[in-house]
Amino acid sequence: MTDVSNVLSDLTRKPDRGGDRHLVDAVFDECVVATVSTVIDGQPWVIPTLVVRDGDRLLIHGSTGAGALRHAAAGAPVAVSAFLLDGIVVAERQFDHSANYRSAVVRGTCRVVDKTERSAALDVFTDALLPGRPTECPPHSASEVAATLVLELSIAEDNWVAKQRSGPAAEPEGDAWTGVIPVRQTYTTPVSNSHRDIPASVSAVVARTGLP
Amino acid sequence: MTDVSNVLSDLTRKPDRGGDRHLVDAVFDECVVATVSTVIDGQPWVIPTLVVRDGDRLLIHGSTGAGALRHAAAGAPVAVSAFLLDGIVVAERQFDHSANYRSAVVRGTCRVVDKTERSAALDVFTDALLPGRPTECPPHSASEVAATLVLELSIAEDNWVAKQRSGPAAEPEGDAWTGVIPVRQTYTTPVSNSHRDIPASVSAVVARTGLP
Repeated sequence: MTDVSNVLSDLTRKPDRGGDRHLVDAVFDECVVATVSTVIDGQPWVIPTLVVRDGDRLLIHGSTGAGALRHAAAGAPVAVSAFLLDGIVVAERQFDHSANYRSAVVRGTCRVVDKTERSAALDVFTDALLPGRPTECPPHSASEVAATLVLELSIAEDNWVAKQRSGPAAEPEGDAWTGVIPVRQTYTTPVSNSHRDIPASVSAVVARTGLP
Repeated sequence: MTDVSNVLSDLTRKPDRGGDRHLVDAVFDECVVATVSTVIDGQPWVIPTLVVRDGDRLLIHGSTGAGALRHAAAGAPVAVSAFLLDGIVVAERQFDHSANYRSAVVRGTCRVVDKTERSAALDVFTDALLPGRPTECPPHSASEVAATLVLELSIAEDNWVAKQRSGPAAEPEGDAWTGVIPVRQTYTTPVSNSHRDIPASVSAVVARTGLP
């Protein structure tokens, strides 16, 4: 089962699984939630959080009171990691079981998005999760903008790694069944908390990511 | 949008979102892929990888050649983090958009599962991902067991944090639509690479996790 074990492991293990910048973009554009890792007092620290990509930057945001984000805002090194699980690969031997996946890690230090850019960055954030949604909402208030910390991590030439596995299981030696169980993140029918019509941005994202 | 921003953030931010040990178990039992963070030369290091829970321990495995796992095997502190994205919460104001989620982090140092226990641990691993699958496969070979590093991280009394958000969006001030888009990880119809019948373990997991 080494192949399962190697899933999303460090690039040195499976150089043929290295990806390119398009893969980085695809992973962050689809993941919704990513994981921000940093180091506090020599210990690993990790926060799953919503992350969006905007061109050559990742945007992370949180309350101005969130400790780990403040640590990152103060210049602590971060590694932002995301993955998409695409399938469970079922082989003849347990050892050859694996996963189909796409993953990316971007490293560096974050820049704090300053007050003058923050409102626009928050729109970009919402728009990446629910395209068109910012125009359906009232404008941000000054207190909302003031209460929100927005961090930006550049995706540069050499600060990322992307990996993937796709395709079938290893060939069986015997007459065993092998195959792949596709896995996907699915949005289902919205649960309305009001009698109003579902907004266009919500209908569109469900149509795009729901099962056919 | 602070509420989105706080999603899966540190527990100090939203103490009412703290969870109990059952939540830790549920998150790791459903997540399939978790994220292992450690510190190498003072820098954050992160690997998304398959992780399973077996009672009071998490099992992680990889090739004996995988650098970051060897680092963890040598006693580096780790934080193993997992999340389940349950929904996108759509509010009147962008600020009140959020996510429904369950998350858990377990911290500590790993124990290397020694050779005598390793074959059984690999069965536990496969069985957690695809219940019943080990009995459908030939036994592990000595070389397969020798090539695989298995790490165990205990879930103890005080080395974890679990968090969740569920429920509807914030009440709107105006007459806006609010609601939740449910999100789930879905297994779909297996893609067979052979003419043999799909094994029972595969049919069962698809029936359990596929959409109705």
